[in-house]
Amino acid sequence: MDEFSLIDLFFKKEARLHRDVIYGIGDDAACVRVPPNHELLISTDTLVSTVHFLPDWDAYDIAYKAVMVNVSDIAAMAGQPCWVSLALTLPEFDELWLKRFSQGLHEALAQFDIALIGGDMTHGPLSITLTIHGLIPSGKAVRRVGSQVHDRIYVSGRLGAAAFAVCKLQQGNSPQNINLDDKQTLMQILQHPHPRIDLARILQRNASAAIDISDGLTADLNHLCTASGRGACLSLDSIPIHPLVKKYQESNAIDFALYGGDDYELCFTIPIEKEEQLLAELHREQIQCYPIGVIEEQTGLREKTKTGEIKTLVLQGYDHFL
Amino acid sequence: MDEFSLIDLFFKKEARLHRDVIYGIGDDAACVRVPPNHELLISTDTLVSTVHFLPDWDAYDIAYKAVMVNVSDIAAMAGQPCWVSLALTLPEFDELWLKRFSQGLHEALAQFDIALIGGDMTHGPLSITLTIHGLIPSGKAVRRVGSQVHDRIYVSGRLGAAAFAVCKLQQGNSPQNINLDDKQTLMQILQHPHPRIDLARILQRNASAAIDISDGLTADLNHLCTASGRGACLSLDSIPIHPLVKKYQESNAIDFALYGGDDYELCFTIPIEKEEQLLAELHREQIQCYPIGVIEEQTGLREKTKTGEIKTLVLQGYDHFL
Repeated sequence: MDEFSLIDLFFKKEARLHRDVIYGIGDDAACVRVPPNHELLISTDTLVSTVHFLPDWDAYDIAYKAVMVNVSDIAAMAGQPCWVSLALTLPEFDELWLKRFSQGLHEALAQFDIALIGGDMTHGPLSITLTIHGLIPSGKAVRRVGSQVHDRIYVSGRLGAAAFAVCKLQQGNSPQNINLDDKQTLMQILQHPHPRIDLARILQRNASAAIDISDGLTADLNHLCTASGRGACLSLDSIPIHPLVKKYQESNAIDFALYGGDDYELCFTIPIEKEEQLLAELHREQIQCYPIGVIEEQTGLREKTKTGEIKTLVLQGYDHFL
Repeated sequence: MDEFSLIDLFFKKEARLHRDVIYGIGDDAACVRVPPNHELLISTDTLVSTVHFLPDWDAYDIAYKAVMVNVSDIAAMAGQPCWVSLALTLPEFDELWLKRFSQGLHEALAQFDIALIGGDMTHGPLSITLTIHGLIPSGKAVRRVGSQVHDRIYVSGRLGAAAFAVCKLQQGNSPQNINLDDKQTLMQILQHPHPRIDLARILQRNASAAIDISDGLTADLNHLCTASGRGACLSLDSIPIHPLVKKYQESNAIDFALYGGDDYELCFTIPIEKEEQLLAELHREQIQCYPIGVIEEQTGLREKTKTGEIKTLVLQGYDHFL
């Protein structure tokens, strides 16, 4: 089967309709409309073998993760994802691989009602680039820049499990002391992250800044602080560590939460005067978020120990599979 | 220098302002606005080493061509390009290479007032994916589908020179009989194509369908015909062959024009009743286009010989550097 037939079979036929897509796959460009009083968010992420996934992963999971990593960028801006275009470079046009890939792609897109509007398929070393588009009511996007001194810092979920999975379950490590159920849960977390689109409206109303945690909490929080020329002080006791990391990694569980990448939770800041409203809205929506520190004038990241001592936090991003 | 500093130095600082970009590089997503009464065109193209360029090309030319190939997709829809995002995968973060690449990128973008709004830089085998966005007044995009029987087929320029350059000047071929000026002209054509944005308004007003010639005239015209379930008959004497192909390739010059890729001219169809208006507008704008045949009910491509005989045209796309 040639490239065009494969695209028809695995991508075009399965492509979801979306009310704002005038036409998608099959022309030199897709044509879409942005509803009145909305702006468009655009983000591009490439997934490369051995950096973002391992070559032995099921193509379903590779595609699934590629979608979620991109959706997370729209979540970080408090937007609603709507369309993606796919650039897929493959060493060979393997029908079985493409079938699994397209299943993962379409199932991941369906979860957020995202339309595949086009792309490009080329011969070459395996690489997946998605460009995702999201909609946001005009002026409502939440950026990295915007935090003020004293703003409270929150994270949207418990951290460290994806990095723990990479460390313990990949690269030939398969420790006997982790039970089968937990192994499966960890792989699920690593391969099928849940970007936090559910927080979009709450962030639009309350957040002064936001970023998604892809490189690790300290690295990404530092990006957020740097964007506004500020710093932060964290209370390490408040950092929510994923229970599976705590279960198997008693001694340095906190390091996975601070430096581990691939969590795709959000880190955001809330002006003090909006904190009460935030907590009420989170409660109403039954969403759990965790306050972890405050924005400070002084650049860099610090930690406050139990005894009240202030220490500099080493900045470090987790290097995925490297 | 780390990834973020390199992005700042070579991409962020140089990024052009554009009236519809609310903010670009530096957030999890760019934020843009689509003006009222406009639709958005989106297209993605990947350039892979040895397929779309050779590894010994100056990075300036690789970037330049990557932009032009993408702009051509917007030209084929009769749109105006406005923003691109760049996914750049590199074996190493070589500052000199990146400097040349960013120069080529920014100079190519500047020609069409296109803003670089974001992207991703990853480690891996060299690959460049651009996602380009274009604006088009609502309902005015020209698609592949839309040709009617008897519509006249036009091409926007003389064909075959890019494929001739690939054939004669690349892969170690360096024939003595091609003089230095002509060699330079041919490399210029191959590396710095001119997408036909100048035809946008004329196509919006007159064309029933359009496609850009990236895979070769017959292959791309066949896509256009197939989209409407029709076929075409060409008059081979009317196919505009690039003079340098004729000069050096007397015997089979027509094959380069019919099957050669990488020309990035447009092939479009015009309803008979609009042909007079088209010609008047082309004349006014001093743009030369060439009528090459007509759309027919019967699928497939045919040629009409000088003696009036009808022959089937073999479909064949030019395989770039493969």
